[in-house]
Amino acid sequence: MRVAIAQLDYTIGDFDGNKAKIVRSIRQAKAEGAQLVIFAEQAISGRPAYDLLNDPVFLEQCQMTLEAIAEQSAGISVIVGLPLAVDNATISAAAIIKEGKVIKYIGKRHVMSRDETLHLGNSKGFEIVRIGDMNIAVVIGSDIHIHNLDFGSDTDLIVSLKSTAYSRGVVAKRHDFYAKMAYRKHAKLIVVNHIGGQTDIVYDGWSAVFNDRGECISLLKGFEEDFTTVDLGADLPAIVLPEQDKDENVYRAIRVGLKDFFVKNGFSKAVVGISGGIDSAVTCALAVEVLGRENVRGLIMPSKYSSNHSVEDSVELAQNLGIRHDIINITDTYTSLREAITPLFEGKPFDATEENMQARIHGAMLMALSNKLGYIVLNTNNKSESAVGYTTLYGDTVGSFCILGDLYKTEVYSLARYINRRNRVIPENTLTKAPSAELRPEQKDTDSLPEYELLDAILYRLIEENQSVDEIATAGFDYDTVKKVYTLFIKNGYKRYQTPPVLRLSTVTLGKGKILPLTYDFSCLL
Amino acid sequence: MRVAIAQLDYTIGDFDGNKAKIVRSIRQAKAEGAQLVIFAEQAISGRPAYDLLNDPVFLEQCQMTLEAIAEQSAGISVIVGLPLAVDNATISAAAIIKEGKVIKYIGKRHVMSRDETLHLGNSKGFEIVRIGDMNIAVVIGSDIHIHNLDFGSDTDLIVSLKSTAYSRGVVAKRHDFYAKMAYRKHAKLIVVNHIGGQTDIVYDGWSAVFNDRGECISLLKGFEEDFTTVDLGADLPAIVLPEQDKDENVYRAIRVGLKDFFVKNGFSKAVVGISGGIDSAVTCALAVEVLGRENVRGLIMPSKYSSNHSVEDSVELAQNLGIRHDIINITDTYTSLREAITPLFEGKPFDATEENMQARIHGAMLMALSNKLGYIVLNTNNKSESAVGYTTLYGDTVGSFCILGDLYKTEVYSLARYINRRNRVIPENTLTKAPSAELRPEQKDTDSLPEYELLDAILYRLIEENQSVDEIATAGFDYDTVKKVYTLFIKNGYKRYQTPPVLRLSTVTLGKGKILPLTYDFSCLL
Repeated sequence: MRVAIAQLDYTIGDFDGNKAKIVRSIRQAKAEGAQLVIFAEQAISGRPAYDLLNDPVFLEQCQMTLEAIAEQSAGISVIVGLPLAVDNATISAAAIIKEGKVIKYIGKRHVMSRDETLHLGNSKGFEIVRIGDMNIAVVIGSDIHIHNLDFGSDTDLIVSLKSTAYSRGVVAKRHDFYAKMAYRKHAKLIVVNHIGGQTDIVYDGWSAVFNDRGECISLLKGFEEDFTTVDLGADLPAIVLPEQDKDENVYRAIRVGLKDFFVKNGFSKAVVGISGGIDSAVTCALAVEVLGRENVRGLIMPSKYSSNHSVEDSVELAQNLGIRHDIINITDTYTSLREAITPLFEGKPFDATEENMQARIHGAMLMALSNKLGYIVLNTNNKSESAVGYTTLYGDTVGSFCILGDLYKTEVYSLARYINRRNRVIPENTLTKAPSAELRPEQKDTDSLPEYELLDAILYRLIEENQSVDEIATAGFDYDTVKKVYTLFIKNGYKRYQTPPVLRLSTVTLGKGKILPLTYDFSCLL
Repeated sequence: MRVAIAQLDYTIGDFDGNKAKIVRSIRQAKAEGAQLVIFAEQAISGRPAYDLLNDPVFLEQCQMTLEAIAEQSAGISVIVGLPLAVDNATISAAAIIKEGKVIKYIGKRHVMSRDETLHLGNSKGFEIVRIGDMNIAVVIGSDIHIHNLDFGSDTDLIVSLKSTAYSRGVVAKRHDFYAKMAYRKHAKLIVVNHIGGQTDIVYDGWSAVFNDRGECISLLKGFEEDFTTVDLGADLPAIVLPEQDKDENVYRAIRVGLKDFFVKNGFSKAVVGISGGIDSAVTCALAVEVLGRENVRGLIMPSKYSSNHSVEDSVELAQNLGIRHDIINITDTYTSLREAITPLFEGKPFDATEENMQARIHGAMLMALSNKLGYIVLNTNNKSESAVGYTTLYGDTVGSFCILGDLYKTEVYSLARYINRRNRVIPENTLTKAPSAELRPEQKDTDSLPEYELLDAILYRLIEENQSVDEIATAGFDYDTVKKVYTLFIKNGYKRYQTPPVLRLSTVTLGKGKILPLTYDFSCLL
């Protein structure tokens, strides 16, 4: 049997657009002689739709779109995912279409994703359908990971409709899992994923077909829409799965996420506050690659505490990228703000207050440009500084979208070097100088924080590996340093509560993967 | 049998503090001759603890605290709630302590609350325990609402450990539910709730005892800690449940929520930007009641677009409240900011950009005072303006906590009148003048929005009642107005994503009760 796989980029709620893409793929599948074409989980609606999944109008649109798709499906079978209203709940389901009619729905048994748990109900789980000469087990989403799924001995093909987001290391792990599943179940296996950005999520594609020896016989592209047909009857040669390069995947994930954030929201232009540091340089370079240099501009906003090199490095970056850049010295505005409010300061000396004032003027200027001319402000925070609150709320935390916020500082450097290997745009000095907020004389990040190599190692254990302070200290880190980092992490949760959406690239994104109370006594955890 | 009920205010993670309160109540119960004392759901840990519920150190502390409590329980039985680690999940459980030993755990069957769904697993549900001469069905949390719970005919007493937050209208509904439950099950019923604020949640207390005819025979206080003992063998007279006044309950809920936000975070002082409008007046008045006038100050920040009366009304409010207030004219800082950035504006005229600039200077000044002197900025947004985005991100949206953000504008007026009936502090002019942001000449809110009576009626249907645009229009509202309000609601989700925690007072708090994607095509819903 020839089977087609359509790996597409859907927009949540754009039923006409999603339908058009799906129908186009159905036609192509028929043209290529396929008897069956398969689409991803919740393809019809786009995902994750959160509380739209409980909106009757939204669900009705899902149903109407499905019916319209079925009408276009004469002469081919279709498996397509959608949210489905059942008794007082919505489930994630696959519709099975045969001869232009929906003959069956198969639901997801366990809702596991944090993006869906609040909004979807559980269901019966996988079922076997007969299509062509094959018994096909159709499994929705994370159900494929349920321990000891028993498809029975008559199953020829397992079809896994997925919506798997990119996160570091996930691609290789996923392929390995599917290969073993096909081998162990003695069945062919097809996995169909989404691709594309949905605000803070990037679906990475890499849909695939495995034979019953667990060999990959067809692999669709990563981070791009793709379509293929495969003759499951033929003894196709095994494909060697490509090596996954972390920096390249992060780079591609950000490109997709940023592109779709702009396209799906109808935005075209971005502004970045360029500081001469690594975060704004990488953000700017990526924005230019995705949006084109004519759609990106930089704002360089030195104060009296800025070093000469920071403006020079900023200008060099902008020139390397060929983008418009303006220099606005904030000193007068800062002086004016400071003079207005200082009478209330009871004679207290210069401290973080004045640093924050400068950062907030930066924020206000970026937002003014955004409000007046429609440039979207790209936030430049990284995961290390967000984790420990080395940020100014309403200052450098402003923006509509944060593309580096799930990368530790050391990972941002790694990504910067990757970008420079492709195209040398980030100034050498930006890569080599010591990081500084430059909001007071001779400031360095290490005045307040451990060196980033150390900080990131601690944070990774704390956040990604969920280790306790004691566990991290036992692993060889200085207890007081770990305790300080942990304390900063907890105490600055209130800042992270008010920051822009962060593109998710890790397994535990701040504020999403680990949700903590804003008010609690954390001394019990030290 | 004499039973004691302890209705307490717990702090999440403060195991020593929670234990001390619990042990004190156990002693009091024994002193009053009780054979059993009952505490609320997750009393030992405080609630909601979010991902702390999956932190092994946190769970170990729960267990150690429980053991310490059991040791103090000689001569009395105890039912107390806590999170409990079971095979690879955490459940919400009741520990049954008899003769100083934990003899049994009873778990919650269905996790229903959006604050827990991501963090807790399901369990077996209620069980019957024998204590004294009674068969007691112990039910955790929302399990009491499971349809057709069958406690069997031998059950003498139903004990419902709860953690029910205040929301409009909930108190009367809850008492009615319990009365009917006791009547229908022919059993006595005791419900034990928390009281106190947990960041954005206020537990309202009102624990109660019902006889098997469904009559309330003991009612603990609302919004305060309380303790009582009841002789279940005696034929106690029925209590007439008090009328619930909405404004009074909202007022009391905010007082508790604000107080605990400060106490549990170790804060003492607040600053409010006073505009002369109703929202800042009510926020300020409530802050003074809770924190004392010596701990609250106002910042009055007129610009050249401010009317004279707005400064006068602001000063009058501050004087009525007896709080320190400072007037800082923002014109110079605004001029400086505007002159610095305007060269990039391509000659475009005055618009919302300049309004936002002024609001962001307000925000920067409030935050500067906060950073320098430790005053917590209280945000003054209301639900109507947040819903339609009639706010400036990083401007009037700044702050650590928002106490009015779950009240529509018309409800804020109602609360203001309630406050003035108690103590006439809010200036008459603030109550009667037309609302205005005063960020451009002669501005009125109604330049951009429908009258608040109309706006709030539409928003209530949209948000609280989950009605579609068509349903609202069919109910008699102008279609274009509804569509405009709906569009504003959706388009401004990005602002609500970045705003401070909002004290929850309604059944659907923005950003919590209704979670929507930030990027989607909402034309399908119009």
